[in-house]
Amino acid sequence: MVQDLNLPVVILVEPNMPNNIGSVARAMLNFGLIELRIVNPLQGWPQKEAYTMASGANIVLDKAMVFDSLQKAMGDLEYVIATTARKHDVTKHVYFPKEGVRFLNPMIKTGIVFGREKNGLENDEVALCDAMITIPNNPDFSSLNLAQAVLLVAYEWFQWSNHAKLEDKIIWRGGFEDERRASKEEVLDFLKQFENVLDRIGYFRTEQKKPIMIRTLNNMFTREKFTSQEIRSLRGVLRSLGWDYQ
Amino acid sequence: MVQDLNLPVVILVEPNMPNNIGSVARAMLNFGLIELRIVNPLQGWPQKEAYTMASGANIVLDKAMVFDSLQKAMGDLEYVIATTARKHDVTKHVYFPKEGVRFLNPMIKTGIVFGREKNGLENDEVALCDAMITIPNNPDFSSLNLAQAVLLVAYEWFQWSNHAKLEDKIIWRGGFEDERRASKEEVLDFLKQFENVLDRIGYFRTEQKKPIMIRTLNNMFTREKFTSQEIRSLRGVLRSLGWDYQ
Repeated sequence: MVQDLNLPVVILVEPNMPNNIGSVARAMLNFGLIELRIVNPLQGWPQKEAYTMASGANIVLDKAMVFDSLQKAMGDLEYVIATTARKHDVTKHVYFPKEGVRFLNPMIKTGIVFGREKNGLENDEVALCDAMITIPNNPDFSSLNLAQAVLLVAYEWFQWSNHAKLEDKIIWRGGFEDERRASKEEVLDFLKQFENVLDRIGYFRTEQKKPIMIRTLNNMFTREKFTSQEIRSLRGVLRSLGWDYQ
Repeated sequence: MVQDLNLPVVILVEPNMPNNIGSVARAMLNFGLIELRIVNPLQGWPQKEAYTMASGANIVLDKAMVFDSLQKAMGDLEYVIATTARKHDVTKHVYFPKEGVRFLNPMIKTGIVFGREKNGLENDEVALCDAMITIPNNPDFSSLNLAQAVLLVAYEWFQWSNHAKLEDKIIWRGGFEDERRASKEEVLDFLKQFENVLDRIGYFRTEQKKPIMIRTLNNMFTREKFTSQEIRSLRGVLRSLGWDYQ
Protein backbone atom coordinates (compact mmCIF):
# COMPACT_ATOMS: atom_id res chain seq x y z
CA MET A 1 0.00 0.00 0.00
CA VAL A 2 1.33 3.41 -0.88
CA GLN A 3 1.61 5.80 1.98
CA ASP A 4 1.29 9.54 1.57
CA LEU A 5 4.63 11.27 1.71
CA ASN A 6 4.98 14.06 4.24
CA LEU A 7 6.34 17.51 3.49
CA PRO A 8 8.36 19.14 6.25
CA VAL A 9 6.47 21.68 8.36
CA VAL A 10 8.06 25.12 8.83
CA ILE A 11 7.77 26.51 12.37
CA LEU A 12 8.56 30.16 13.11
CA VAL A 13 9.16 31.02 16.76
CA GLU A 14 7.98 34.49 17.78
CA PRO A 15 8.51 36.24 14.46
CA ASN A 16 8.21 39.98 14.87
CA MET A 17 7.60 41.38 11.38
CA PRO A 18 4.48 40.32 9.45
CA ASN A 19 6.26 41.07 6.17
CA ASN A 20 8.91 38.52 7.11
CA ILE A 21 6.17 35.93 7.58
CA GLY A 22 4.90 36.78 4.10
CA SER A 23 8.37 36.42 2.60
CA VAL A 24 8.75 33.12 4.37
CA ALA A 25 5.49 31.88 2.80
CA ARG A 26 6.74 32.86 -0.64
CA ALA A 27 10.10 31.17 -0.10
CA MET A 28 8.35 28.03 1.14
CA LEU A 29 6.02 27.76 -1.82
CA ASN A 30 8.89 28.45 -4.24
CA PHE A 31 10.24 25.12 -3.12
CA GLY A 32 6.99 23.28 -2.64
CA LEU A 33 6.50 23.61 1.12
CA ILE A 34 3.01 24.54 2.29
CA GLU A 35 2.58 23.92 6.01
CA LEU A 36 3.48 26.90 8.19
CA ARG A 37 3.13 27.05 11.97
CA ILE A 38 3.70 30.22 13.95
CA VAL A 39 4.50 30.33 17.64
CA ASN A 40 3.37 33.59 19.25
CA PRO A 41 3.58 36.03 16.33
CA LEU A 42 4.51 39.22 18.17
CA GLN A 43 2.26 41.50 16.16
CA GLY A 44 -0.69 39.09 16.00
CA TRP A 45 -2.08 37.04 13.17
CA PRO A 46 -3.31 37.21 10.43
CA GLN A 47 -1.70 40.34 9.01
CA LYS A 48 -2.35 42.12 5.74
CA GLU A 49 1.31 42.99 5.20
CA ALA A 50 2.19 39.31 5.21
CA TYR A 51 -0.14 38.73 2.27
CA THR A 52 1.41 41.62 0.36
CA MET A 53 4.91 40.19 0.76
CA ALA A 54 3.81 36.65 -0.04
CA SER A 55 3.38 37.62 -3.72
CA GLY A 56 0.59 35.12 -4.19
CA ALA A 57 1.64 32.37 -1.81
CA ASN A 58 -1.70 32.82 -0.08
CA ILE A 59 -2.33 29.13 0.34
CA VAL A 60 0.53 28.97 2.82
CA LEU A 61 -0.74 31.93 4.85
CA ASP A 62 -4.40 30.84 4.76
CA LYS A 63 -3.48 27.46 6.21
CA ALA A 64 -0.93 28.77 8.71
CA MET A 65 -1.62 27.71 12.29
CA VAL A 66 -0.78 29.70 15.39
CA PHE A 67 0.39 28.09 18.64
CA ASP A 68 1.23 29.47 22.05
CA SER A 69 4.27 27.28 22.60
CA LEU A 70 6.90 25.51 20.54
CA GLN A 71 6.05 22.30 22.36
CA LYS A 72 2.50 22.41 21.05
CA ALA A 73 3.59 23.44 17.58
CA MET A 74 5.75 20.33 17.28
CA GLY A 75 3.49 17.97 19.20
CA ASP A 76 2.57 15.69 16.30
CA LEU A 77 5.99 15.72 14.65
CA GLU A 78 8.48 12.89 14.83
CA TYR A 79 11.72 14.57 13.81
CA VAL A 80 12.46 18.24 14.17
CA ILE A 81 15.51 20.24 13.14
CA ALA A 82 16.34 23.61 14.67
CA THR A 83 18.13 26.20 12.57
CA THR A 84 20.77 28.28 14.22
CA ALA A 85 23.30 30.92 13.33
CA ARG A 86 25.27 30.69 16.52
CA LYS A 87 26.70 28.05 18.68
CA HIS A 88 24.33 26.63 21.24
CA ASP A 89 25.42 24.94 24.38
CA VAL A 90 23.59 21.75 23.56
CA THR A 91 24.90 18.41 22.50
CA LYS A 92 23.12 17.90 19.20
CA HIS A 93 24.44 17.23 15.77
CA VAL A 94 24.83 20.34 13.68
CA TYR A 95 24.55 19.94 9.93
CA PHE A 96 24.87 22.18 6.93
CA PRO A 97 21.52 22.47 5.09
CA LYS A 98 22.58 20.11 2.33
CA GLU A 99 23.23 17.34 4.82
CA GLY A 100 20.54 18.21 7.33
CA VAL A 101 17.64 18.08 4.87
CA ARG A 102 18.40 14.41 4.27
CA PHE A 103 16.95 13.66 7.68
CA LEU A 104 13.60 15.15 6.69
CA ASN A 105 12.32 11.72 5.84
CA PRO A 106 9.03 11.87 3.93
CA MET A 107 7.83 8.70 5.64
CA ILE A 108 7.53 10.48 8.99
CA LYS A 109 6.21 13.87 10.12
CA THR A 110 9.09 16.33 10.24
CA GLY A 111 9.62 20.01 10.92
CA ILE A 112 12.20 22.77 10.67
CA VAL A 113 12.24 25.46 13.36
CA PHE A 114 13.40 29.03 12.75
CA GLY A 115 13.97 31.44 15.63
CA ARG A 116 13.34 35.10 16.24
CA GLU A 117 14.66 37.69 13.77
CA LYS A 118 17.04 39.18 16.30
CA ASN A 119 17.85 36.46 18.77
CA GLY A 120 17.15 33.16 17.09
CA LEU A 121 16.25 30.24 19.31
CA GLU A 122 16.92 29.82 23.01
CA ASN A 123 18.88 26.87 24.31
CA ASP A 124 15.75 25.41 25.86
CA GLU A 125 14.02 25.52 22.49
CA VAL A 126 16.91 23.89 20.69
CA ALA A 127 16.89 21.23 23.39
CA LEU A 128 13.46 20.09 22.17
CA CYS A 129 14.73 19.40 18.66
CA ASP A 130 16.53 16.38 17.29
CA ALA A 131 19.34 18.10 15.44
CA MET A 132 20.48 21.48 14.20
CA ILE A 133 21.11 23.07 10.84
CA THR A 134 23.47 25.99 10.40
CA ILE A 135 24.00 27.84 7.14
CA PRO A 136 27.64 28.21 6.10
CA ASN A 137 28.35 31.82 5.22
CA ASN A 138 30.73 34.74 5.46
CA PRO A 139 31.80 34.89 9.11
CA ASP A 140 32.39 38.63 8.79
CA PHE A 141 28.83 39.29 7.58
CA SER A 142 26.67 36.42 8.58
CA SER A 143 23.30 37.95 9.42
CA LEU A 144 20.69 36.34 7.21
CA ASN A 145 17.16 37.61 6.93
CA LEU A 146 14.57 35.14 8.29
CA ALA A 147 13.01 34.49 4.89
CA GLN A 148 16.43 33.96 3.33
CA ALA A 149 17.27 31.32 5.90
CA VAL A 150 13.97 29.58 5.12
CA LEU A 151 14.67 29.95 1.41
CA LEU A 152 18.06 28.25 1.60
CA VAL A 153 16.86 25.33 3.68
CA ALA A 154 13.74 24.88 1.51
CA TYR A 155 15.91 25.03 -1.61
CA GLU A 156 18.17 22.29 -0.32
CA TRP A 157 15.21 20.22 0.73
CA PHE A 158 13.63 20.61 -2.72
CA GLN A 159 16.82 19.58 -4.48
CA TRP A 160 17.31 16.58 -2.31
CA SER A 161 13.73 15.38 -2.35
CA ASN A 162 13.50 15.72 -6.11
CA HIS A 163 16.80 14.14 -6.96
CA ALA A 164 17.27 11.26 -4.65
CA LYS A 165 15.23 8.20 -5.25
CA LEU A 166 12.68 7.20 -2.68
CA GLU A 167 14.58 4.01 -1.97
CA ASP A 168 17.60 5.99 -0.88
CA LYS A 169 15.56 7.92 1.59
CA ILE A 170 13.92 4.92 3.11
CA ILE A 171 17.27 3.42 4.01
CA TRP A 172 17.46 5.99 6.77
CA ARG A 173 14.53 4.39 8.54
CA GLY A 174 16.82 1.46 9.19
CA GLY A 175 15.76 -0.79 11.98
CA PHE A 176 12.46 0.86 12.73
CA GLU A 177 10.25 -0.58 10.00
CA ASP A 178 7.91 -2.27 12.42
CA GLU A 179 8.06 0.37 15.10
CA ARG A 180 6.54 3.79 14.77
CA ARG A 181 8.83 6.59 15.86
CA ALA A 182 7.71 8.33 19.02
CA SER A 183 6.00 11.63 18.32
CA LYS A 184 7.27 14.78 20.02
CA GLU A 185 4.18 14.79 22.20
CA GLU A 186 4.90 11.31 23.50
CA VAL A 187 8.50 12.21 24.25
CA LEU A 188 7.59 15.50 25.91
CA ASP A 189 4.89 13.86 28.04
CA PHE A 190 7.43 11.32 29.18
CA LEU A 191 9.92 14.05 30.02
CA LYS A 192 7.30 15.90 32.04
CA GLN A 193 6.52 12.76 33.99
CA PHE A 194 10.23 12.13 34.48
CA GLU A 195 10.71 15.65 35.79
CA ASN A 196 7.89 15.13 38.31
CA VAL A 197 9.50 11.95 39.54
CA LEU A 198 12.89 13.64 39.82
CA ASP A 199 11.30 16.37 41.89
CA ARG A 200 9.72 13.81 44.14
CA ILE A 201 12.89 11.81 44.72
CA GLY A 202 14.89 14.94 45.44
CA TYR A 203 17.15 14.74 42.42
CA PHE A 204 17.21 18.49 42.00
CA ARG A 205 19.21 19.52 45.02
CA THR A 206 18.76 23.24 44.43
CA GLU A 207 16.20 25.21 42.49
CA GLN A 208 19.00 27.03 40.63
CA LYS A 209 20.40 23.86 39.15
CA LYS A 210 17.02 22.52 38.09
CA PRO A 211 16.67 24.31 34.72
CA ILE A 212 20.11 23.15 33.58
CA MET A 213 19.46 19.61 34.65
CA ILE A 214 16.11 19.58 32.89
CA ARG A 215 17.76 20.91 29.75
CA THR A 216 20.33 18.12 29.92
CA LEU A 217 17.56 15.53 30.11
CA ASN A 218 15.59 17.16 27.32
CA ASN A 219 18.67 17.16 25.16
CA MET A 220 19.31 13.52 25.79
CA PHE A 221 15.87 12.25 25.06
CA THR A 222 15.03 14.41 22.10
CA ARG A 223 18.33 14.12 20.35
CA GLU A 224 17.89 10.66 19.06
CA LYS A 225 15.33 8.28 17.87
CA PHE A 226 13.12 6.43 20.27
CA THR A 227 10.21 4.33 19.20
CA SER A 228 6.76 4.82 20.61
CA GLN A 229 7.09 1.46 22.38
CA GLU A 230 10.35 2.47 24.01
CA ILE A 231 8.87 5.63 25.41
CA ARG A 232 5.98 3.59 26.79
CA SER A 233 8.52 1.28 28.42
CA LEU A 234 10.28 4.20 30.05
CA ARG A 235 6.98 5.49 31.38
CA GLY A 236 6.37 2.01 32.75
CA VAL A 237 9.65 2.29 34.63
CA LEU A 238 8.53 5.55 36.19
CA ARG A 239 5.16 4.06 37.12
CA SER A 240 6.94 1.18 38.83
CA LEU A 241 8.41 3.67 41.27
CA GLY A 242 5.04 3.61 42.88
CA TRP A 243 3.75 7.12 42.32
CA ASP A 244 0.85 7.58 40.02
CA TYR A 245 2.11 10.61 38.16
CA GLN A 246 0.72 11.56 34.81
CA MET B 1 54.39 33.15 -7.28
CA VAL B 2 50.98 33.03 -5.74
CA GLN B 3 48.29 34.67 -7.79
CA ASP B 4 45.36 36.42 -6.23
CA LEU B 5 42.21 34.40 -6.51
CA ASN B 6 39.30 36.11 -8.20
CA LEU B 7 35.83 36.34 -6.75
CA PRO B 8 32.96 36.22 -9.26
CA VAL B 9 31.46 39.59 -10.15
CA VAL B 10 27.66 39.99 -9.88
CA ILE B 11 26.05 41.93 -12.74
CA LEU B 12 22.47 43.20 -12.51
CA VAL B 13 20.83 44.17 -15.81
CA GLU B 14 18.36 47.07 -15.57
CA PRO B 15 17.18 46.48 -12.02
CA ASN B 16 14.13 48.58 -11.26
CA MET B 17 13.86 48.72 -7.47
CA PRO B 18 16.71 50.25 -5.43
CA ASN B 19 15.68 48.15 -2.43
CA ASN B 20 16.28 45.03 -4.52
CA ILE B 21 19.81 46.25 -5.23
CA GLY B 22 20.33 46.68 -1.50
CA SER B 23 19.06 43.18 -0.79
CA VAL B 24 21.35 41.84 -3.50
CA ALA B 25 24.33 43.52 -1.82
CA ARG B 26 23.42 41.93 1.49
CA ALA B 27 22.99 38.49 -0.09
CA MET B 28 26.34 38.85 -1.88
CA LEU B 29 28.27 39.79 1.23
CA ASN B 30 26.58 37.02 3.21
CA PHE B 31 28.47 34.66 0.96
CA GLY B 32 31.65 36.64 0.53
CA LEU B 33 31.02 38.33 -2.83
CA ILE B 34 31.88 42.01 -3.02
CA GLU B 35 32.01 43.20 -6.62
CA LEU B 36 28.67 44.46 -7.96
CA ARG B 37 28.11 45.95 -11.41
CA ILE B 38 24.82 47.53 -12.44
CA VAL B 39 23.70 47.99 -16.04
CA ASN B 40 21.30 50.94 -16.41
CA PRO B 41 19.63 51.06 -13.01
CA LEU B 42 16.15 52.32 -13.95
CA GLN B 43 15.78 54.67 -10.99
CA GLY B 44 19.35 55.96 -11.06
CA TRP B 45 22.28 55.36 -8.77
CA PRO B 46 23.22 55.63 -5.92
CA GLN B 47 19.98 55.32 -3.94
CA LYS B 48 19.39 55.69 -0.22
CA GLU B 49 16.84 52.87 -0.12
CA ALA B 50 19.45 50.45 -1.34
CA TYR B 51 21.63 51.26 1.65
CA THR B 52 18.71 50.72 4.03
CA MET B 53 18.03 47.26 2.64
CA ALA B 54 21.69 46.30 2.56
CA SER B 55 21.73 46.04 6.38
CA GLY B 56 25.35 47.05 6.56
CA ALA B 57 26.71 45.59 3.33
CA ASN B 58 27.81 49.11 2.42
CA ILE B 59 31.16 48.05 1.08
CA VAL B 60 29.38 46.34 -1.82
CA LEU B 61 27.24 49.36 -2.64
CA ASP B 62 30.08 51.87 -2.24
CA LYS B 63 32.19 49.97 -4.75
CA ALA B 64 29.34 49.19 -7.17
CA MET B 65 30.02 50.33 -10.72
CA VAL B 66 27.39 51.47 -13.21
CA PHE B 67 27.56 50.68 -16.94
CA ASP B 68 25.36 51.60 -19.86
CA SER B 69 25.53 48.21 -21.54
CA LEU B 70 25.97 44.58 -20.55
CA GLN B 71 28.83 44.34 -23.07
CA LYS B 72 30.81 46.98 -21.19
CA ALA B 73 29.92 45.54 -17.79
CA MET B 74 31.46 42.20 -18.75
CA GLY B 75 34.29 43.58 -20.86
CA ASP B 76 37.16 42.46 -18.64
CA LEU B 77 35.66 39.12 -17.66
CA GLU B 78 36.75 35.78 -19.07
CA TYR B 79 33.81 33.53 -18.24
CA VAL B 80 30.26 34.71 -17.61
CA ILE B 81 27.17 32.76 -16.60
CA ALA B 82 23.65 34.09 -17.23
CA THR B 83 20.89 33.19 -14.80
CA THR B 84 17.47 32.46 -16.19
CA ALA B 85 14.09 31.30 -14.97
CA ARG B 86 12.72 30.45 -18.40
CA LYS B 87 13.87 28.66 -21.49
CA HIS B 88 15.87 30.79 -23.90
CA ASP B 89 16.19 30.11 -27.55
CA VAL B 90 19.95 29.89 -27.39
CA THR B 91 22.21 26.92 -27.60
CA LYS B 92 24.06 27.15 -24.31
CA HIS B 93 24.55 24.70 -21.54
CA VAL B 94 22.07 25.18 -18.71
CA TYR B 95 23.18 24.15 -15.23
CA PHE B 96 21.61 24.06 -11.82
CA PRO B 97 23.44 26.45 -9.47
CA LYS B 98 25.28 23.66 -7.72
CA GLU B 99 26.85 22.55 -11.00
CA GLY B 100 27.15 25.95 -12.65
CA VAL B 101 29.20 27.57 -9.90
CA ARG B 102 31.97 25.06 -10.53
CA PHE B 103 32.81 26.93 -13.70
CA LEU B 104 33.51 30.11 -11.76
CA ASN B 105 37.19 29.33 -11.73
CA PRO B 106 39.07 31.61 -9.29
CA MET B 107 42.11 31.67 -11.58
CA ILE B 108 40.21 33.71 -14.17
CA LYS B 109 37.86 36.71 -14.01
CA THR B 110 34.28 35.47 -13.92
CA GLY B 111 30.81 36.92 -13.57
CA ILE B 112 27.18 35.98 -12.98
CA VAL B 113 24.46 37.99 -14.74
CA PHE B 114 20.96 38.51 -13.33
CA GLY B 115 18.13 39.97 -15.42
CA ARG B 116 15.28 42.42 -14.82
CA GLU B 117 12.83 41.80 -11.97
CA LYS B 118 9.93 41.26 -14.36
CA ASN B 119 11.38 40.04 -17.62
CA GLY B 120 14.77 38.57 -16.89
CA LEU B 121 17.35 38.62 -19.65
CA GLU B 122 16.76 38.96 -23.37
CA ASN B 123 18.00 36.34 -25.79
CA ASP B 124 20.64 38.73 -27.10
CA GLU B 125 21.98 39.23 -23.61
CA VAL B 126 22.10 35.52 -22.86
CA ALA B 127 23.94 35.12 -26.14
CA LEU B 128 26.87 37.11 -24.71
CA CYS B 129 27.34 34.66 -21.89
CA ASP B 130 29.18 31.36 -21.80
CA ALA B 131 26.57 29.26 -20.06
CA MET B 132 23.32 29.50 -18.13
CA ILE B 133 22.20 28.75 -14.62
CA THR B 134 18.59 28.01 -13.76
CA ILE B 135 17.29 27.49 -10.26
CA PRO B 136 15.22 24.33 -9.73
CA ASN B 137 11.97 25.15 -7.95
CA ASN B 138 8.22 24.58 -7.72
CA PRO B 139 6.93 24.84 -11.30
CA ASP B 140 3.55 26.03 -9.98
CA PHE B 141 5.07 28.93 -8.05
CA SER B 142 8.44 29.68 -9.50
CA SER B 143 8.79 33.45 -9.27
CA LEU B 144 11.89 34.22 -7.26
CA ASN B 145 12.75 37.68 -6.03
CA LEU B 146 15.95 39.08 -7.59
CA ALA B 147 17.87 39.09 -4.31
CA GLN B 148 16.76 35.54 -3.58
CA ALA B 149 18.12 34.35 -6.91
CA VAL B 150 21.43 36.06 -6.13
CA LEU B 151 21.36 34.55 -2.64
CA LEU B 152 20.97 31.00 -3.91
CA VAL B 153 23.71 31.26 -6.51
CA ALA B 154 26.06 33.02 -4.09
CA TYR B 155 25.33 30.35 -1.48
CA GLU B 156 26.23 27.56 -3.89
CA TRP B 157 29.36 29.40 -4.96
CA PHE B 158 30.39 29.86 -1.34
CA GLN B 159 29.87 26.21 -0.55
CA TRP B 160 31.78 25.07 -3.57
CA SER B 161 34.68 27.48 -3.19
CA ASN B 162 35.03 26.65 0.47
CA HIS B 163 34.66 22.98 -0.12
CA ALA B 164 38.18 22.15 0.87
CA LYS B 165 37.62 23.83 4.20
CA LEU B 166 34.28 22.22 4.97
CA GLU B 167 35.93 19.48 6.96
CA ASP B 168 37.34 22.06 9.33
CA LYS B 169 33.93 23.49 9.95
CA ILE B 170 32.35 20.13 10.35
CA ILE B 171 34.35 19.57 13.49
CA TRP B 172 31.83 21.90 15.04
CA ARG B 173 28.94 19.78 13.84
CA GLY B 174 29.15 17.33 16.65
CA GLY B 175 28.61 19.96 19.26
CA PHE B 176 30.53 17.46 21.35
CA GLU B 177 33.98 18.97 21.27
CA ASP B 178 34.09 19.59 24.97
CA GLU B 179 32.00 16.59 25.78
CA ARG B 180 33.53 13.19 25.38
CA ARG B 181 31.24 10.49 24.07
CA ALA B 182 30.42 7.93 26.69
CA SER B 183 32.50 4.80 26.35
CA LYS B 184 30.79 1.45 26.00
CA GLU B 185 31.95 0.60 29.47
CA GLU B 186 30.29 3.63 30.98
CA VAL B 187 27.05 2.89 29.18
CA LEU B 188 27.05 -0.76 30.15
CA ASP B 189 27.84 0.03 33.78
CA PHE B 190 24.91 2.39 33.83
CA LEU B 191 22.66 -0.24 32.29
CA LYS B 192 23.69 -2.77 34.90
CA GLN B 193 22.89 -0.32 37.67
CA PHE B 194 19.58 0.49 35.98
CA GLU B 195 18.71 -3.19 35.81
CA ASN B 196 19.42 -3.59 39.52
CA VAL B 197 17.14 -0.70 40.31
CA LEU B 198 14.41 -2.11 38.09
CA ASP B 199 14.67 -5.40 39.91
CA ARG B 200 14.38 -3.65 43.23
CA ILE B 201 11.35 -1.59 42.31
CA GLY B 202 9.55 -4.57 40.83
CA TYR B 203 9.55 -3.43 37.25
CA PHE B 204 10.06 -6.94 35.94
CA ARG B 205 6.75 -8.54 36.77
CA THR B 206 7.77 -11.98 35.62
CA GLU B 207 11.13 -13.63 35.14
CA GLN B 208 10.16 -14.63 31.60
CA LYS B 209 9.63 -11.09 30.45
CA LYS B 210 12.82 -9.81 32.01
CA PRO B 211 15.27 -10.68 29.19
CA ILE B 212 13.09 -8.97 26.60
CA MET B 213 12.70 -5.88 28.73
CA ILE B 214 16.40 -5.71 29.36
CA ARG B 215 17.07 -6.06 25.68
CA THR B 216 14.70 -3.16 24.98
CA LEU B 217 16.55 -0.95 27.44
CA ASN B 218 19.93 -1.99 26.11
CA ASN B 219 18.82 -1.19 22.61
CA MET B 220 17.65 2.23 23.61
CA PHE B 221 20.72 3.30 25.47
CA THR B 222 23.37 1.84 23.24
CA ARG B 223 21.87 2.79 19.93
CA GLU B 224 22.57 6.45 20.18
CA LYS B 225 25.15 8.82 21.36
CA PHE B 226 25.24 9.86 24.96
CA THR B 227 28.02 11.91 26.42
CA SER B 228 29.95 10.78 29.39
CA GLN B 229 28.37 13.58 31.41
CA GLU B 230 24.88 12.51 30.45
CA ILE B 231 25.49 8.97 31.57
CA ARG B 232 26.80 10.31 34.86
CA SER B 233 23.61 12.37 35.20
CA LEU B 234 21.47 9.30 34.65
CA ARG B 235 23.43 7.42 37.29
CA GLY B 236 22.81 10.37 39.57
CA VAL B 237 19.11 9.90 38.98
CA LEU B 238 19.34 6.28 40.01
CA ARG B 239 21.37 7.16 43.08
CA SER B 240 18.68 9.65 44.08
CA LEU B 241 16.30 6.75 44.45
CA GLY B 242 18.07 6.10 47.68
CA TRP B 243 19.68 2.73 47.15
CA ASP B 244 23.37 2.54 47.02
CA TYR B 245 23.77 0.27 44.06
CA GLN B 246 26.95 0.06 42.09
